[in-house]
Amino acid sequence: MSLINRAFAVKADQEDALASFRNRFFIADPKMIYLDGNSLGMLPAHTSACINDVVENEWGTGLIRSWNSHWYTRSQQIAAKLAPIVGARPDEVIIADSTSVNLFKLAFAALQHNKNRKTIVSDELNFPSDLYVLQGLASLMGEGYQLKLVKSANGIDIDQYELEQHIDENTALVSLSHVLFKSAYMYDMAQVTRIAQQKGALVLWDLSHAAGAVLVNLNRCHADLAIGCTYKYLNGGPGSLAYLYVRKDLQAQLQSPIWGWFGQENPFAFDLDYQPAKRIERFLAGTPPVLSLSAIEPALDLLIEAGMDQLRQKSIALSSYLLDLFYKYLQPLGFKLQSPADAGSRGSHISISHPEAYRICRALIHKNTGSRVVIPDFREPDVIRLGIAPLYNSWCDIYDAVSEIKDITQNRWFEKFPQSKETVT
Amino acid sequence: MSLINRAFAVKADQEDALASFRNRFFIADPKMIYLDGNSLGMLPAHTSACINDVVENEWGTGLIRSWNSHWYTRSQQIAAKLAPIVGARPDEVIIADSTSVNLFKLAFAALQHNKNRKTIVSDELNFPSDLYVLQGLASLMGEGYQLKLVKSANGIDIDQYELEQHIDENTALVSLSHVLFKSAYMYDMAQVTRIAQQKGALVLWDLSHAAGAVLVNLNRCHADLAIGCTYKYLNGGPGSLAYLYVRKDLQAQLQSPIWGWFGQENPFAFDLDYQPAKRIERFLAGTPPVLSLSAIEPALDLLIEAGMDQLRQKSIALSSYLLDLFYKYLQPLGFKLQSPADAGSRGSHISISHPEAYRICRALIHKNTGSRVVIPDFREPDVIRLGIAPLYNSWCDIYDAVSEIKDITQNRWFEKFPQSKETVT
Repeated sequence: MSLINRAFAVKADQEDALASFRNRFFIADPKMIYLDGNSLGMLPAHTSACINDVVENEWGTGLIRSWNSHWYTRSQQIAAKLAPIVGARPDEVIIADSTSVNLFKLAFAALQHNKNRKTIVSDELNFPSDLYVLQGLASLMGEGYQLKLVKSANGIDIDQYELEQHIDENTALVSLSHVLFKSAYMYDMAQVTRIAQQKGALVLWDLSHAAGAVLVNLNRCHADLAIGCTYKYLNGGPGSLAYLYVRKDLQAQLQSPIWGWFGQENPFAFDLDYQPAKRIERFLAGTPPVLSLSAIEPALDLLIEAGMDQLRQKSIALSSYLLDLFYKYLQPLGFKLQSPADAGSRGSHISISHPEAYRICRALIHKNTGSRVVIPDFREPDVIRLGIAPLYNSWCDIYDAVSEIKDITQNRWFEKFPQSKETVT
Repeated sequence: MSLINRAFAVKADQEDALASFRNRFFIADPKMIYLDGNSLGMLPAHTSACINDVVENEWGTGLIRSWNSHWYTRSQQIAAKLAPIVGARPDEVIIADSTSVNLFKLAFAALQHNKNRKTIVSDELNFPSDLYVLQGLASLMGEGYQLKLVKSANGIDIDQYELEQHIDENTALVSLSHVLFKSAYMYDMAQVTRIAQQKGALVLWDLSHAAGAVLVNLNRCHADLAIGCTYKYLNGGPGSLAYLYVRKDLQAQLQSPIWGWFGQENPFAFDLDYQPAKRIERFLAGTPPVLSLSAIEPALDLLIEAGMDQLRQKSIALSSYLLDLFYKYLQPLGFKLQSPADAGSRGSHISISHPEAYRICRALIHKNTGSRVVIPDFREPDVIRLGIAPLYNSWCDIYDAVSEIKDITQNRWFEKFPQSKETVT
């Protein structure tokens, strides 16, 4: 049986030990191929009942009493489930706010901690919102503070030697995405952390495109700080709360700039003077949005049940299969690979570029040819990202998606769609 | 018919034009009297179906496409419904983050704007989380910055002359709760704003205990800045997202310290340099938690339908009735009034104190005498807050709650409950 053949995909799905997890998700259209779990994960089938319970039983029936009986420690409880997924201890992770707000809190704390150093190092391929937050911080901190961005030679990866050259005795903080949002290039977290720490800098990892798709081990890498969203491979729902990690021995030395009551040692004593909590809770600020917080738990349960080792194995197998198909069918049509070819330095999505990428995306999503809808996403100026969520994507998803891309491009079906861009995601 | 008689309450309920709104809420226990809407509002009956639609249709079926079709402008759409409730224009309000994070953003912006002034003025009865955030800001801003707290002579209100004395040529910002969380004392927003502005300070109002219960008119008061939560009288659900207001002409002059992508002029262009949005969106930061955001809308629809003038009238009538019953039945039992007696300077809850307040609260909530459960809340050291939500509380609620408090205190039924405190809310 040839690799480049749908029967191969069908057989691989039959042999896939994780295949049944797809049935644990809400499937509105069984024919749709969803390759955007790197942007918004699918809805776990159990989440709807769980949220209904939070709304009707906890809020509707329990009312204010549910703060005591359910909600007050929910951030910590869910963080305890997330901790092993990112290789941290339960008391090193907390669910709170958005990724941007958490980055602001931790990066500020790091700059305050490393007071005699004034440079933040990141790279130009980092997620723009992270760069905005860091720019804002540099501006807020005042005279002498600056954000230095390491350039990429190819738009795909960052040369580690180049990065190393940027870190010096004036570097307070190195803030990077573990997996880059556009190319899926994955930094060697252990090595970069070691280099930065040797030079006296703290390191902050954004795990948004990594957690739930690759093996993250913050403790083994002796990582200082991390943040991440829960709505991509963690399937926590649109805009679901973010998390932050602070290594245990650093917690007492760092302080959030936002002194809200949930970060207070004893919030309900209503003392007039702020006394930060002794543990990770000191990085909380206001009251957490309970509905969005609660949706994270049933989603994490699925990841834990499947096992991160198995998920990463499947992710590598599927993305490698996609690459094989890419070389055979898409490269000849003018597509270029915009992700690392080596699985060891790649997250769980594959980016490809094409001059007609935008219209090809439109055709994949909106085509009315009776064939299957494929949902990837488009990133300026000409990139299509194909996200692989090993919990619910199948080998046939990959095969069929490549077939559709090939057909649309070869037959120029995308020409039915306008060039003007209306999408925001 | 005597005022101090249940038949009076029954008749008043029959004549109450807003009485039917109670049926628009989820009522798990028709015999329970809920007087804690000032802490967590009840669940609107329609909210459950609305959230289910967001989860299954928008997330489960629409997936990433729902950012374009539904979610991307939801903060603005809901803000447009909230705007008239707080007397603002739709383009002056936005839903985002928590109250604490919004206070941080706006207070920081105000301090940056009034750069040659270094004092923040607040009062010692302000909500502690607000004071913590302001303390943190003063510490962050550095040398010379300080938070000055106006003292209260009686623990209930703040003398306006006293407040005026604290505002001087070094005051950058006056940050106050429009209605105080403990006593329900309500500041004269127009007058305080005028005084502070005359002295060159900006004024920031926390509307958490005001919006949805009293008439707030930010525009008429020419207010500079405001923040507030949506989970009290606005019934948006546990920890539901907060809002912020910046007067139109101030927007371009102020900048948030947290430069997240939702505050960027064009988030999905993925530019490397932050360019703040021209309008109120510049005060957004990260991706909003869509589930918790969406729950706010059906709740606001009820307030709009009932009308704020009618709601405020009913709130005053009910709280005045409660005061009449207090003087007759509770004052003789050793209770003291901890709220203003004058309805014009009072929000929508009544606080009373008693040496046994904690155990009386326990008995009201947990009693097993077969009589009705009453849910108020307790605030250290000896205060019981009785919240009146005019959308769903009735005259009989008030009468019956006072009867229960009287019986429990008179017959010392509270002695069955331990003195040790376990509650967190």
